[in-house]
Amino acid sequence: MSLAEQILEGNIRAAARLMRDIDDGRPQAIDELKQLYPHTGNAYIIGITGPPGAGKSTLVDQLTASFRSQGKKVGVVAIDPTSPFTGGAILGDRIRMNRHSCDEGVFIRSLATRGALGGLSRSTSDVALVMDALGMDIVIIETVGVGQDEVDIVKEAHTTCVVMVPGLGDDIQAIKAGILEIGDIFVVNKADREGADRTARELSTMLEMRHAVAGAWSPKVMKTEAQRGTGMSELTDEILAHHAFFLSSGTINNFLRERNQRHFMGILRDTLLQKALSFMAKDSVLDKVVADMLDHLIDPYSAVEVIVEHMMPNRID
Amino acid sequence: MSLAEQILEGNIRAAARLMRDIDDGRPQAIDELKQLYPHTGNAYIIGITGPPGAGKSTLVDQLTASFRSQGKKVGVVAIDPTSPFTGGAILGDRIRMNRHSCDEGVFIRSLATRGALGGLSRSTSDVALVMDALGMDIVIIETVGVGQDEVDIVKEAHTTCVVMVPGLGDDIQAIKAGILEIGDIFVVNKADREGADRTARELSTMLEMRHAVAGAWSPKVMKTEAQRGTGMSELTDEILAHHAFFLSSGTINNFLRERNQRHFMGILRDTLLQKALSFMAKDSVLDKVVADMLDHLIDPYSAVEVIVEHMMPNRID
Repeated sequence: MSLAEQILEGNIRAAARLMRDIDDGRPQAIDELKQLYPHTGNAYIIGITGPPGAGKSTLVDQLTASFRSQGKKVGVVAIDPTSPFTGGAILGDRIRMNRHSCDEGVFIRSLATRGALGGLSRSTSDVALVMDALGMDIVIIETVGVGQDEVDIVKEAHTTCVVMVPGLGDDIQAIKAGILEIGDIFVVNKADREGADRTARELSTMLEMRHAVAGAWSPKVMKTEAQRGTGMSELTDEILAHHAFFLSSGTINNFLRERNQRHFMGILRDTLLQKALSFMAKDSVLDKVVADMLDHLIDPYSAVEVIVEHMMPNRID
Repeated sequence: MSLAEQILEGNIRAAARLMRDIDDGRPQAIDELKQLYPHTGNAYIIGITGPPGAGKSTLVDQLTASFRSQGKKVGVVAIDPTSPFTGGAILGDRIRMNRHSCDEGVFIRSLATRGALGGLSRSTSDVALVMDALGMDIVIIETVGVGQDEVDIVKEAHTTCVVMVPGLGDDIQAIKAGILEIGDIFVVNKADREGADRTARELSTMLEMRHAVAGAWSPKVMKTEAQRGTGMSELTDEILAHHAFFLSSGTINNFLRERNQRHFMGILRDTLLQKALSFMAKDSVLDKVVADMLDHLIDPYSAVEVIVEHMMPNRID
């Protein structure tokens, strides 16, 4: 029985195995993903993003508990900042969400696929796809919301919660302006801290100042203390309200079109690069080209032209 | 006279024009870059990275003044966080480094090329290349040091300064672990703030705990108050000390090999994708494929195989 078939029967070990293959960039993982694809699209994907120190992990832990109490199966994809040197997850050894570790209805996976072909957003969507196929009702993607990679990751989610905390300094104001546009719900966590009301008020004002589109979702600012569970049931309700809106308003149609196109383009880019790498592996073409560049015999732009010309002579333009 | 020739004569307006062409992804920009390439490699590139609110802009401003007082020409590439919605720079309207605005020896460029083919790290290296060709002795690249994109950007620099501030919360500890490996110099800025000594001490301890490689550079932790200029001349000296080490130790050879390979691969990836896009533009192949995916007639992996097979039939594998 293929991994895909086992996963569709709910086999968690098979899912973990396929995720490892995805991480390792094994070509056979693609065959499994192909088999899973027609059986996906059932999971509701929630993105949680925000700066480091905002308490996102605790919030995700609480949300997981909340959805579990409603009988829903929950998958969590936690994107950990990666060490550029070791290639491993910095927080990989941080024990995540202890209390769910014996619960079969919760599947947690940390991702730190620095350098993986296609990058973090590709791996994240593939892993979310596996969780979807495995029968998870909800998949929560948690990521540090700053870089472009992270913004791309959040695009995979149906509902995106942006988590802020009071008092992170002036530049946060600027970051907020960018983050306003990706959030469906805004959470001021650690609401017991000084300045929480001000942060929430500022966020609300900034949201109100935006040009409101008729019939569009209007994001709320919620206050939570995830550590104590304060405000969590209100947040869960608001997430579900956004989901209902997402489905009833037809927003989902554009979402699916854009997601399909993004996935296709990402896979296309990786496949082409892979083909080029195979091509250049013959006769160590890459080594020779790099040596010529070091000797200033050729610039990288011209070098690429030479290679591409060899790969695709005259066929396309 | 081509833009490239004008740039090599020191024409700042031609440089600005080419940078705009790079931003806009105009194909003719590549021809100019090709002409510039043999004349580059003279600028000393300094990367400044750190979390939002660390005071990086002020620090860059002070460094610029410091190098200017030594008679060096300074280019600054400031990577601004981009709004995912508008595609423009959030901080684009923030007036950068007022006091250098009338100085012909300073060339400042803000980059926020969200969505640009090849991404931010490609644009950054191209812009740095133009500044190099223009005759800037020093090019400072300033970026928010969190995402993968930003780590890639820092790889362009000969010397990387990681800027921290006291009291940014617990998760920063974890981030630090990743940042340890990319920094040649560590700066605790806003050193007048509570906890500055502790942050500096913790950083030093973490650096000391690393496995020291014989003959390798050993990064220092410096304290600054960029706002008042405190500690800036020491920082400038340390940066120059690292540069001297970089040249004398032979580190530069590996650096150049890796950089050439990275540039080549980045350009290759973009070129291939561009070819594929031209190919798919015929007969609206892309639209048809996306429609089939929406109807679940094909999965994206198989769709890519079909396209690639058409583009490169049997030639490569």
